[in-house]
Amino acid sequence: MKEMDQVWSDHKTFLSEAEVQIQEGLQSKVALVNKVTHHILSSGGKRIRPLLLIISAHLCDYHDKERIYLSSGILEFIHTATLLHDDVIDNAEVRRGIAPARILWGNQASILVGDYLYTLALSHAVQMHSFEMNTLLASTCLRMAEGETLQLSHNGNLKMGETTYLEIIELKTAMLISASCRLGAVIAKTSEEKKEALGQFGKNIGIAFQVADDTLDYVADGKRLGKSLGEDLREGKITLPLLHLLKHCRKEDQDGLNEIMDSKNFDHNNLSKVIKLMRSHGSIDYALKQAQDYANKAKSALSVFPDSPQRQYLMTIADYVVQRDH
Amino acid sequence: MKEMDQVWSDHKTFLSEAEVQIQEGLQSKVALVNKVTHHILSSGGKRIRPLLLIISAHLCDYHDKERIYLSSGILEFIHTATLLHDDVIDNAEVRRGIAPARILWGNQASILVGDYLYTLALSHAVQMHSFEMNTLLASTCLRMAEGETLQLSHNGNLKMGETTYLEIIELKTAMLISASCRLGAVIAKTSEEKKEALGQFGKNIGIAFQVADDTLDYVADGKRLGKSLGEDLREGKITLPLLHLLKHCRKEDQDGLNEIMDSKNFDHNNLSKVIKLMRSHGSIDYALKQAQDYANKAKSALSVFPDSPQRQYLMTIADYVVQRDH
Repeated sequence: MKEMDQVWSDHKTFLSEAEVQIQEGLQSKVALVNKVTHHILSSGGKRIRPLLLIISAHLCDYHDKERIYLSSGILEFIHTATLLHDDVIDNAEVRRGIAPARILWGNQASILVGDYLYTLALSHAVQMHSFEMNTLLASTCLRMAEGETLQLSHNGNLKMGETTYLEIIELKTAMLISASCRLGAVIAKTSEEKKEALGQFGKNIGIAFQVADDTLDYVADGKRLGKSLGEDLREGKITLPLLHLLKHCRKEDQDGLNEIMDSKNFDHNNLSKVIKLMRSHGSIDYALKQAQDYANKAKSALSVFPDSPQRQYLMTIADYVVQRDH
Repeated sequence: MKEMDQVWSDHKTFLSEAEVQIQEGLQSKVALVNKVTHHILSSGGKRIRPLLLIISAHLCDYHDKERIYLSSGILEFIHTATLLHDDVIDNAEVRRGIAPARILWGNQASILVGDYLYTLALSHAVQMHSFEMNTLLASTCLRMAEGETLQLSHNGNLKMGETTYLEIIELKTAMLISASCRLGAVIAKTSEEKKEALGQFGKNIGIAFQVADDTLDYVADGKRLGKSLGEDLREGKITLPLLHLLKHCRKEDQDGLNEIMDSKNFDHNNLSKVIKLMRSHGSIDYALKQAQDYANKAKSALSVFPDSPQRQYLMTIADYVVQRDH
């Protein structure tokens, strides 16, 4: 099995070339648009979606660099648009360890440049003359917006339930990762079976990633992820470890959790209480196990492909997304 | 020449049928999405863009109701998305005399449902299988986002100049009105000359409308337009009558205007000063004359079409957009 570092370094040239196209595709005649897009697209994103697209296309024996790079840009523009809007929605003070666009240029610029990037993505997609690709991307964006709205409407709702939680993360996160993989098969014009397999692979690693990320919010060292412990709780985002805890803890503890949520007091003391309860009820382990199950499901979806370096790359990525150091 | 009321009533059946399709196209499985979209799409918008599309299609001898209605919905979704985001950008307290979505459901919901409507529009457009239509709509949305960002970056800038002002309103307002007219010709698959003529007609009535609307902000009775006098000034939006005044008033008056803008004190006293200066320098008349010139340019663009009831409808609309009671 290849290591994740190897996966990145084996695609370094490809990704650098894609990066040039991404940056070139960004030029606007409005200076403020350029400032904001340059800031957010140069602030350390890993380009996991372009990487997935490139490997998926190669796995389907497709190597047209121009179309792969154009598609990479489209995915990154959509992803970046969601980041700009998310930061406004979440009142984010920091993104990947640095000040987000909304702090530097204000919420208004973040909203409008987000709109710009969404439409830039769909505008580039139109130029690729593929009905299937445009349908996939448009429906992905639509579902993502629904997912974000669904999340908002359940903000602070402790009665949300695991099914709704999973629906939210599938829509808001997994759809675009699924589309990144499926798109590789779509531009390759390969079989429906392979498109579906790559779509399923992407969906499941997307869910795995988000479950792991949400769980590590109660575990991770704040510095490393560029955000502090319990950030989701502070924002009213109810995630899997908390839902597990609520289901399995005693009535008194449930009441205590309700009280903390109602008071909106997430100081060190209250946060420690929550995390301690999670640990004693195995909620963190449960959630990480769920993430691993989704990663395994993703790997199974690849069984339609014979073994190859490309398939191995994807297998490595499936394991990587649930690791603690992404 | 037909009166505007006549234009509306002659298209009443058509518009009601389009409305049914618009509402049907909106259904989401996320309740909050439905609440917000239903609120904003039922709050008294006049559907001027669908009206322009319908008349333009008829003028090009195209009568396929289904495609006309679908296209109407797409235009209205895009327009509504911009309203939702604009209200957040402007901190709007009122829209068309009632509370906007951001007051009822918050800025977050307004941003996300705006994203939903943008992508719903482009998603419906993809389903219409027309490369030309998709290119037109995507580039329109892109230019609109640029226009809004350009406006934001010149907020409060008294040195902006008329050229930049006109560029902003062309991008943020006139592009979509132009696209509404051109789209009628595009779905009709008519000649390039007619597409261009309708595009030019739309662009010029769009500019005429925005110049008139911006000017009436210093004239209009607040109740009628659902917004109060001098609203743009309060929001730092520098519009044509103010630019005219700045160019033609004495140095002391310029300093006074700069002081008012810097102090951000737009009380009755300061507002009266500004309006009095505008009146004495003919700034209101100048701006309204400009609006009328654009309306005339719009009408000239229609010379490629022989006279017909449809052409007369458009002529009436061109006059209507610069009138005081739209």
